[in-house]
Amino acid sequence: MRILLVGAGGVGSAFCAIAARRDFFETIVVADHDEARAGRAAEADPRFAGAQVDASSADAVAALCREHAITHVMNAVDPRFVMPIFEGAFAAGADYLDMAMSLSQRHPEAPYSKVGVKLGDEQFAQAGEWEAAGRLALCGIGVEPGLSDVFARYAADHLFSQIDELGVRDGANLVVRDDEGNEIFAPSFSIWTTIEECLNPPVVWEKSRRDVDGGWFTTPPFSEPEVFEFPEGIGPVECVNVEHEEVLLMPRWVDAQRVTFKYGLGEEFIGVLRTLNALGLDRTDPVRVPSTGGPVEISPRDVVAAVLPDPASVGPRMTGKTCAGLWVTGTGKDGQGNPTGPRSTYLFHVVDNDWAMKEYGHQCVVWQTAVNPVVALELLARGDWSGVGVLGPEAFDAVPFLDLLDDYGSPWGMRDDEV
Amino acid sequence: MRILLVGAGGVGSAFCAIAARRDFFETIVVADHDEARAGRAAEADPRFAGAQVDASSADAVAALCREHAITHVMNAVDPRFVMPIFEGAFAAGADYLDMAMSLSQRHPEAPYSKVGVKLGDEQFAQAGEWEAAGRLALCGIGVEPGLSDVFARYAADHLFSQIDELGVRDGANLVVRDDEGNEIFAPSFSIWTTIEECLNPPVVWEKSRRDVDGGWFTTPPFSEPEVFEFPEGIGPVECVNVEHEEVLLMPRWVDAQRVTFKYGLGEEFIGVLRTLNALGLDRTDPVRVPSTGGPVEISPRDVVAAVLPDPASVGPRMTGKTCAGLWVTGTGKDGQGNPTGPRSTYLFHVVDNDWAMKEYGHQCVVWQTAVNPVVALELLARGDWSGVGVLGPEAFDAVPFLDLLDDYGSPWGMRDDEV
Repeated sequence: MRILLVGAGGVGSAFCAIAARRDFFETIVVADHDEARAGRAAEADPRFAGAQVDASSADAVAALCREHAITHVMNAVDPRFVMPIFEGAFAAGADYLDMAMSLSQRHPEAPYSKVGVKLGDEQFAQAGEWEAAGRLALCGIGVEPGLSDVFARYAADHLFSQIDELGVRDGANLVVRDDEGNEIFAPSFSIWTTIEECLNPPVVWEKSRRDVDGGWFTTPPFSEPEVFEFPEGIGPVECVNVEHEEVLLMPRWVDAQRVTFKYGLGEEFIGVLRTLNALGLDRTDPVRVPSTGGPVEISPRDVVAAVLPDPASVGPRMTGKTCAGLWVTGTGKDGQGNPTGPRSTYLFHVVDNDWAMKEYGHQCVVWQTAVNPVVALELLARGDWSGVGVLGPEAFDAVPFLDLLDDYGSPWGMRDDEV
Repeated sequence: MRILLVGAGGVGSAFCAIAARRDFFETIVVADHDEARAGRAAEADPRFAGAQVDASSADAVAALCREHAITHVMNAVDPRFVMPIFEGAFAAGADYLDMAMSLSQRHPEAPYSKVGVKLGDEQFAQAGEWEAAGRLALCGIGVEPGLSDVFARYAADHLFSQIDELGVRDGANLVVRDDEGNEIFAPSFSIWTTIEECLNPPVVWEKSRRDVDGGWFTTPPFSEPEVFEFPEGIGPVECVNVEHEEVLLMPRWVDAQRVTFKYGLGEEFIGVLRTLNALGLDRTDPVRVPSTGGPVEISPRDVVAAVLPDPASVGPRMTGKTCAGLWVTGTGKDGQGNPTGPRSTYLFHVVDNDWAMKEYGHQCVVWQTAVNPVVALELLARGDWSGVGVLGPEAFDAVPFLDLLDDYGSPWGMRDDEV
């Protein structure tokens, strides 16, 4: 297996640190628009090499694939670049993996009730070509989407005879402090992506609505607030609906009545996002602003990203745990697959930042995102996972994945709630 | 009386519209860095003339005074230009009025507990020269500072035998809507200046602390939050301490135990300012941001200003009322000046935006600021007010001022609260 990793940011660098300890691949070429950054990430292992790439160019991605005889392209840049990397991999005859799918476009007339272009639509539109070519695009194989989708497959195969709701729930009790020890506002993940996913109309899927837009519909931002109790000492966090890939992926392979994604943003962060939106600072279209060299056109969202600490740099100043998981409700089943009674189970994966920093030198949120594609690539290299077309993680057997995750020293957990 | 008005922005233009209806002056020369804008404001009346001026140059201001035989300079530009205009007026032998005083500089070691250079310090430092020359600088004669200081004088002379607190309280229920009628976030005054005054350390005065820094001290931003009930249907608004001139002016002429200024920013606006501050978007020092033409250096606060609607343009889309006033507590007195019981009185001035737009074509916040210096100039022209040195509005008899304000069609009000 010869891997091209596109993107040497927080997640890309953690991916390198994790993969460096495994032996399933021959080489990893780390490519970034900033070649020096790629070079630093590639220092993790002698099998790695750094390279420069323009991720917005499918031709540049394909050329790099051909130059290094790449078999698998791992996309670790922000979702604006999904399509050129996806198409560049296909053009070069490589398989493809990503952790976020092609972007949505809101419905022009009814953005907060109907879907427009959905997450991943552009990729699924090319599924036939990937199938015909016998190539695999494994989409959404980070932690969320990714591990959450593996949990959905596991719940359907091993825990539930009938599923009411597949509800992804993501929460943390992370705190970042400045040099004086004061708590500061410093998101642990790309603010550009966070704004994108939190301010887009959240998407929900219901089987009963399958006749309209395939069952997918949208709501206003921050809808259906709910306090969810997270495990391992994290405790209760306010969660709200957010647009996320799982809602687009799970219904394609797992039978359920309803699929949702709720993000435990917490009241403070929701307040910040609401403010950025009310002021128009979440905008990506350019505004005219004075600069020392005269008026310039800049995107307000890029300014927000520029004033905040780099998420890749906050690890040493952060404490707490992050939890990704799937809350499943419905009817349980016994060992023979026969229905038992009502069941409510939360399948989860918690990473403590102190552990991630000490063990890998990467903060827990990017580490948790990065470990899953390494596990998936190892399963593909071994032949434990195989497939063709544009597939989500729930299209594969969950058991070898969850076993291998244990083997990486980062076990998952399960909590049954009273019903 | 021959007036030089420096500044033809929102307040300057409203000043012209109000003065045009009065006959106490011979001419008003309207000067602005943008001569066309000055010309437009001067169209209000044949006694007006437009001119160009560089307000940062005391020499330019003095030259314009001499050219037009100016007797009174009215400063209506932002407080960065107080000192050159103040000094230019003095050099040309003219009297001077402003609506904001020379800027403060925070204490280098203890910014949130001790004062550094205070608002107006640079002007008061020259009080002796103004007195010796027999000339008057009447500082802080807008609405706040201005009318609020007149209220302090009135309360001390006519309502209270002893004052515990002179508490300026400013609030509004103004709402701005977009073309579809949806409420939008659109401050009715410069966001750049609002950030400046709200994030500077608020100043408070207490008589008991007179031995240290003259009784003035600072607190962290947004301190002592309090819900104040505003009159005439505005209702309750959350108010917090803000740095403002009244706290520097009132203790010099009016006896009280404590002087405060609280701005009714409301929870939403305080939240916005806190968020901008927490994220560093209030910063004026440049950050590096990508643009279509490559990386550029811009000031985040300029971006915030660029994404919000221009305050000068929101008048027609605004509804509601703005209230400026002074809450006085202490011991009342009867007609003979003898102490009565405990008393709590709010003296106030409310302007309805619909009325200001219909009657004057200017939005209520700038109109309310502009009417007070016109009244003061008329009192000086008549000889009802006179004085020499650097003085605040509380150094003059309040009664003729309040009577004349009534005569301008904009009466003040008074509410006694139960104690």
